[in-house]
Amino acid sequence: MRNFDENNITTAVIDRLAECTSPRARQISESLVRHLHDFVRDVEPTQEEWGEAIGFLTGVGKMCSDTRQEFILLSDALGVSMLVDAINHRLAKHATETTVLGPFYVENPPEYALGDLIDTRPGPALFCEGKVTDVDGKPLAGAIVDTWHSDAEGFYDVQAEAGLKSLTGRARLRTDAEGRFWFRSIVPKFYPIPHDGPVGKMLEAQGRHPYRPAHVHFMISAPGYEKLITHVFLDGDPYLDSDVVFGVKDSLVKPLVAQQPGTTPAGHAVDAGTSLLHYDFALAREAISS
Amino acid sequence: MRNFDENNITTAVIDRLAECTSPRARQISESLVRHLHDFVRDVEPTQEEWGEAIGFLTGVGKMCSDTRQEFILLSDALGVSMLVDAINHRLAKHATETTVLGPFYVENPPEYALGDLIDTRPGPALFCEGKVTDVDGKPLAGAIVDTWHSDAEGFYDVQAEAGLKSLTGRARLRTDAEGRFWFRSIVPKFYPIPHDGPVGKMLEAQGRHPYRPAHVHFMISAPGYEKLITHVFLDGDPYLDSDVVFGVKDSLVKPLVAQQPGTTPAGHAVDAGTSLLHYDFALAREAISS
Repeated sequence: MRNFDENNITTAVIDRLAECTSPRARQISESLVRHLHDFVRDVEPTQEEWGEAIGFLTGVGKMCSDTRQEFILLSDALGVSMLVDAINHRLAKHATETTVLGPFYVENPPEYALGDLIDTRPGPALFCEGKVTDVDGKPLAGAIVDTWHSDAEGFYDVQAEAGLKSLTGRARLRTDAEGRFWFRSIVPKFYPIPHDGPVGKMLEAQGRHPYRPAHVHFMISAPGYEKLITHVFLDGDPYLDSDVVFGVKDSLVKPLVAQQPGTTPAGHAVDAGTSLLHYDFALAREAISS
Repeated sequence: MRNFDENNITTAVIDRLAECTSPRARQISESLVRHLHDFVRDVEPTQEEWGEAIGFLTGVGKMCSDTRQEFILLSDALGVSMLVDAINHRLAKHATETTVLGPFYVENPPEYALGDLIDTRPGPALFCEGKVTDVDGKPLAGAIVDTWHSDAEGFYDVQAEAGLKSLTGRARLRTDAEGRFWFRSIVPKFYPIPHDGPVGKMLEAQGRHPYRPAHVHFMISAPGYEKLITHVFLDGDPYLDSDVVFGVKDSLVKPLVAQQPGTTPAGHAVDAGTSLLHYDFALAREAISS
């Protein structure tokens, strides 16, 4: 119960969990202590390095605000978010693949009607359309489609000075009777994750760039189905093979098609010169909890 | 370079460190990613649990201020601080054992003369004395002795509303020509680490109490010697065998002696009824860096 050294302290900390009443809290705590201590024994930090780690984590916390989640950025940049995503989506065949939520989702985004322009910022015109079905292709009517993306300079609305007060480039839509959705917006650009904080410094120290390839976020939900959180990436982007958060999957990459005279695959008339992005999403059935 | 899954993502993140120019930063980053991913694969957190972890870490960061270091508390409560301490103090024979710094040290504490009363708060009188030597018993004159402790209710000065504006129960002293130091203060009490924040909630979830046994902190430095960071614990304390931060070592536990008529072992006259704490510290020679 005293005199802990570098060998017996791990067991000592774990023994202290004897009166933990939640089996899950105990399991997570025990595993955390084991892996964290193994990490410390592996790198043998000096007291100064330990102090730097404390300072780094404190800085990450201090950077968090209503419109900035630096710990999510850290989780993303260390590949933890994609790992958690993979563990939680050992997918049903034919379901759309998932990727990270990212730090820029805003709860209850503004509602728009199908076909509305959802972005008031300058930029090349985008027309986005698609369908939401189950894994057998059955259309899901009334599915909630949340979408958000950066502007032509690579910034999200919430990164602007005005922040939450002027949301744009994000919307909540509902699919029609045939499971279809469509909206007008602007073409998003690749961008660096916010790198003026501790995570940016970490990436620099690790010799890494902070860029994500251009993409449009989607969060799609329908009763009885797993909520789908994913992106559609724009083909040809220079960062598709080095996404700082490891989020790219081939099945999520789609070409932007320059609109020809006529109508889109889904039958919408749009101006020539508009870029068209078409993606059909397939939702997995919700697992029945035991 | 795409399509990462729960098995190949760890290698993918580590491969991304290829352009890291600091071998140490690369080693620490690689080890962190490996152990962090192993932890995640081990507990398989749900998305909600991942979100709770992000929220927990953010809360820990938000709790940090000039007078509160919640990440040090977290490191302490998970046994990490003591582990780092042990790794950094594979001690020379006969050197005083080390223990955690804790979150209440204040840089450049107020200077006092030997024999001064260093605490203005109410509480039973304490007389503390000792000697600072090298491991062969040679006295170290002019060694800097920083000391700090809680009051009779278990609170540090910086935890009071006034915070840093009214430091007390902490001092910087210098040993005399024979390496001796002595000061007057009050007897500290056991106390809970600050548990009104996220770390307190964690301890509760883990079924653990937040208490530390009563102790007096010391940080002692002298040119050419390893800086010594340690405590002297008061024998008989109810929490000696369950210190929440795993800091107790038998060699650091000393009885408080009720002062009898006469003088202390070091020859100081003090009032009867004063409790006497005597501890002699031996500093290890500074390692020659290669």
